Amino acid sequence: MRAKNIYLSSKELEQALKEYTGRLKGFFDCCETETVDTGLSLGRITAEPVFALVSSPHFNASAMDGIALNATVTFGASERNRIRLAEGKDYVVVDTGDPIPPKYNAVIMIENLIEKGEGEVEISAPATPWQHIRPIGEDIVQGELIVPTFHKIRPVDMGAMLAGGTNTVRVIKKPRVAIIPTGTELILPGEPLEEGSLIEYNSHIFAGLIEEWGGEAVRQKPVPDVYEDIKNVLKRAVEESDMVLVNAGSSAGREDFTKDIIRELGEVITHGIAIKPGSPTVLGIVSGKPVVGIPGYPVSAYIIMENIVKPLIFKLLRLAERCGAEVEAVSSRRVVSSLKNKEFVRVKLGKVGDKLIATPLTRGAGVVMSLVRADGILEIPQSSEGVDAGETVSVRLLKDPEEIENTIVCIGSHDPILDLLANEIHRKNPRLHLASAHVGSMGGITALLKGETHIAGVHLLDGDTGEYNISYIKKYLGSGRIALIKLVDRIQGFMVKKGNPKSIRDFSDLAREGIGFVNRQKGSGTRLLLDYKLKEKKIDPAAINGYDREEFTHMAVAAAVAFSDIDAGLGVYSAARSLGLDFVPVCSEEYDLAVPVEFLEDSNIKLMLEIVRDSAFREKVKAMGGYSLERAGEVVPVE
Amino acid sequence: MRAKNIYLSSKELEQALKEYTGRLKGFFDCCETETVDTGLSLGRITAEPVFALVSSPHFNASAMDGIALNATVTFGASERNRIRLAEGKDYVVVDTGDPIPPKYNAVIMIENLIEKGEGEVEISAPATPWQHIRPIGEDIVQGELIVPTFHKIRPVDMGAMLAGGTNTVRVIKKPRVAIIPTGTELILPGEPLEEGSLIEYNSHIFAGLIEEWGGEAVRQKPVPDVYEDIKNVLKRAVEESDMVLVNAGSSAGREDFTKDIIRELGEVITHGIAIKPGSPTVLGIVSGKPVVGIPGYPVSAYIIMENIVKPLIFKLLRLAERCGAEVEAVSSRRVVSSLKNKEFVRVKLGKVGDKLIATPLTRGAGVVMSLVRADGILEIPQSSEGVDAGETVSVRLLKDPEEIENTIVCIGSHDPILDLLANEIHRKNPRLHLASAHVGSMGGITALLKGETHIAGVHLLDGDTGEYNISYIKKYLGSGRIALIKLVDRIQGFMVKKGNPKSIRDFSDLAREGIGFVNRQKGSGTRLLLDYKLKEKKIDPAAINGYDREEFTHMAVAAAVAFSDIDAGLGVYSAARSLGLDFVPVCSEEYDLAVPVEFLEDSNIKLMLEIVRDSAFREKVKAMGGYSLERAGEVVPVE
Repeated sequence: MRAKNIYLSSKELEQALKEYTGRLKGFFDCCETETVDTGLSLGRITAEPVFALVSSPHFNASAMDGIALNATVTFGASERNRIRLAEGKDYVVVDTGDPIPPKYNAVIMIENLIEKGEGEVEISAPATPWQHIRPIGEDIVQGELIVPTFHKIRPVDMGAMLAGGTNTVRVIKKPRVAIIPTGTELILPGEPLEEGSLIEYNSHIFAGLIEEWGGEAVRQKPVPDVYEDIKNVLKRAVEESDMVLVNAGSSAGREDFTKDIIRELGEVITHGIAIKPGSPTVLGIVSGKPVVGIPGYPVSAYIIMENIVKPLIFKLLRLAERCGAEVEAVSSRRVVSSLKNKEFVRVKLGKVGDKLIATPLTRGAGVVMSLVRADGILEIPQSSEGVDAGETVSVRLLKDPEEIENTIVCIGSHDPILDLLANEIHRKNPRLHLASAHVGSMGGITALLKGETHIAGVHLLDGDTGEYNISYIKKYLGSGRIALIKLVDRIQGFMVKKGNPKSIRDFSDLAREGIGFVNRQKGSGTRLLLDYKLKEKKIDPAAINGYDREEFTHMAVAAAVAFSDIDAGLGVYSAARSLGLDFVPVCSEEYDLAVPVEFLEDSNIKLMLEIVRDSAFREKVKAMGGYSLERAGEVVPVE
Repeated sequence: MRAKNIYLSSKELEQALKEYTGRLKGFFDCCETETVDTGLSLGRITAEPVFALVSSPHFNASAMDGIALNATVTFGASERNRIRLAEGKDYVVVDTGDPIPPKYNAVIMIENLIEKGEGEVEISAPATPWQHIRPIGEDIVQGELIVPTFHKIRPVDMGAMLAGGTNTVRVIKKPRVAIIPTGTELILPGEPLEEGSLIEYNSHIFAGLIEEWGGEAVRQKPVPDVYEDIKNVLKRAVEESDMVLVNAGSSAGREDFTKDIIRELGEVITHGIAIKPGSPTVLGIVSGKPVVGIPGYPVSAYIIMENIVKPLIFKLLRLAERCGAEVEAVSSRRVVSSLKNKEFVRVKLGKVGDKLIATPLTRGAGVVMSLVRADGILEIPQSSEGVDAGETVSVRLLKDPEEIENTIVCIGSHDPILDLLANEIHRKNPRLHLASAHVGSMGGITALLKGETHIAGVHLLDGDTGEYNISYIKKYLGSGRIALIKLVDRIQGFMVKKGNPKSIRDFSDLAREGIGFVNRQKGSGTRLLLDYKLKEKKIDPAAINGYDREEFTHMAVAAAVAFSDIDAGLGVYSAARSLGLDFVPVCSEEYDLAVPVEFLEDSNIKLMLEIVRDSAFREKVKAMGGYSLERAGEVVPVE
């Protein structure tokens, strides 16, 4: 076991980037350009100013259907003194766009002519000189600047350049960025999945981002963790591209070669940046070109793409870097951050009442789904110890503000049908979204209390009355404020391996020698159910092997049972079924959506109610198994 | 001369669109889909929910370099009670990402091990079960919803789908939109330009927009104004595409065939919408597919693309239509609008002090440059008679708000070097823009007075003192408030045709029989110069043929002299030279930039000053001819 130097530098992000671009000055100064057809230049950046080569129009043109004439022949015309004009002698007929003969200087619209036959017309009002004529250059004058240097070409710019006779345009070459995934464990999507293997998908995220930023991505095949192999691929990539990204191997572990290879071929400017996630990053230069070692975890990688690679590409393309819109939001939780790092926290945003609420998502750097679900990024400066619950924070948006306005926020207990509901809502109305955070039933009650959610999934059994949800809502939220939207009766039970090889039938079986269990997190309705049953049956939780291991969703519990040596977990039938597990029913419970009564009038909530009541949705839920929807869509005020 | 029915309907825009999409219900309901590789799905819209086919990770994986073991063997370890562990017996070595053997449930980081040699290590702290392990499904659980139906795929979504084992994805087919330019006068870019011919460029604007909106554009060659020809091309296009756009010929003029052809092949739902520009539009249906007749003028066409075609494409793609950000601004002018139409006014926006100022651009529907220059669109409802100067209005942005914040606004007299300055400023600092509006020197003074501009180009001769600019500024803006940034001494003179065939030498020549003149607009410094000279020389303006015809820039005057039968105009040498005209010098004048003193400290203005003083800029200006820059960059307070 060989431990390498595990301590990286912790350079401040802005400082690291500034030093790096400073050292790359020659690279940025040499701006490669190419000439492209104007009609194919959409989204490209001009390398020089574009001046019109011809005027538009390039002749005096009629702006109307009518007749062209010299205005002097019309002077004095009125209703009482009509003037008669003859074709050929006084006027010519013109359509819109026709050239005006040099001797004429006005157009009278067809609507204002009185036909007299035999090529004669009468008029009852004079024409003013130059009326209804588009003079030469009305739109574009030859020699006029159409777009300046370093301008991103839009559809209208293409049109204006073509109108001005500019059929080709000199643009900045797209930066060619090579992406080298490294790791012996990597397999390509579609290759057989073995234990220890990892699907290589980061390069697709990188390529998509580079394309969106105006570069050209060249994805390479994964290279195993062999120093010489990576070195050879890197050398060739540097020759063939403007910039190289090496993914994974950028830290200082046993098989992290990026830093040493860059040092052998060129120079390492920085190894280690004081940000989280994304710290173990290598900023290097080989043959004068940037070579960036990017961490393997997808979220770390994304943060480095946004904060290091994007500025490099934008600088090459001479684009002003847009930071994205920022909004003020109220943090729904406390977020503790170290003074060692600047931290990037992914958050969900929701407009509840008139407050915009930011709910931090998981901080695990390995969770790509936290990026998929995020609405924004909250940056906690290096100098700060974090953010308090209720504190107003500034969040950089990852989504359109309109999308956030049109999102129903659902914080509380998790059930797989929430996924189905989210999908149906967005399918029925593409403007509307349902975003759910899984914090358990009690977490949902708290979110309602603090005004941080529109709805909360709850299934809370009152041990005294056997009644679900109502007593908890009364206790924590009072009477008259909340209604329950009845959703499903669902069956909770033990998820066990196919064939139930360990014969798990009852709660007492969980405490047997040799049984491995996986639990749900504290505050979840399922955890409360377990604890209630254990107490009722006088079983000591400490006797259950795995009582400490917490998962946050039914699906995660099912996956633990399906794919590891764990024998049992408590959860709903649909989750067990979707992973092919056996299921031992324990009890039926009422899973409802709690909603403040004032939101019942909200059009988004109304649409959701419609979908819950819709037979198509009910059929889909029933097909998942383990649900009964007899009261689904009923609204029960908690009085 | 055959006049057709020239009166179109004037259906309200929202009503027209609603009726049209209502009639196209079958078209929208049938949603064509296709399966694409996930790695190539960027920007596409999902046609069904995407659920994970595998978990990620799909095994319990080490989150650190270190050793995997069963936590129980570590219980009791402390600094005073180190526990010794043997490889193979107690632990295995694992790197980040390695699978955890089934019998183990914790990882200890390499940093926390004390090497004892011969495969033995000591630890001084216990491990908690599941520490440093990424459990199965930590990121994605098999069966979990990754993205819902009708979701636009981003780079991170591609990554998450691949991580979840989804290698292909069902997406909505890109709508195929055929674009048919019609008009006998149309030529392709690059074809020889003759009088009466028009470069066909609208189809490129349409194609660019359709691409940006997620469709696939198929541009056809221009079709002459022959009924049968257009009909045949249209028939084939309907067969081969999802939607057809026929450009020009959508009104009711002599050669406007679109409506009749659609009526022959299918059905016309609407002809004529109550908007300006864009009114003469045809909304038709052929073989169940939308066929839209779009007006020929580029601005009218753009408004119809944005307000009719974009909603159709977004509806097909099930995208929520984003309206674009809106901002509040103060209108710098009065804009009169008819009660007949909803009007779309292009505006320039500028942040001057803390006010955002909206300055309406030309309303000519033929001016594509008004779209290139526009920062936003001001919509005046049908029920409104317009907007007053100083009124707060809502403007839909066409540009990034950051770009507008970083724009130096220059309202006043025009000189071709402003184009050069704009280009240099943006080249030196891609974040910064100079936007100029040409309203003449007096218009610039007014804009300064109303706080609507950062700087104003002025060249105002005081006939009494022979001094430029200072007396005007004192009179209208007082002392101590404004400084002059000296720019150039420039030569004004007569622009005349090559060889000066009409021998124009002096102002008196302008009043000669048979001389055609073109004037500048009232309030421009050049107009004041002309009027001053005419008065001095006692020449009656009415004697000058063309005194009434006004152009707004030096270049437009030069173009009129160069390309029509006009003999002379007054303007600067650089404009004459760029169009190959002869030039008869009249006088030299001081062209300065007036700036409120408080803006001299503004970093953007400072950068502009640096550029004005820079030798590279001065050389480029000198190369244009007719300028002297002896005092360029000097700042003269008007006391």
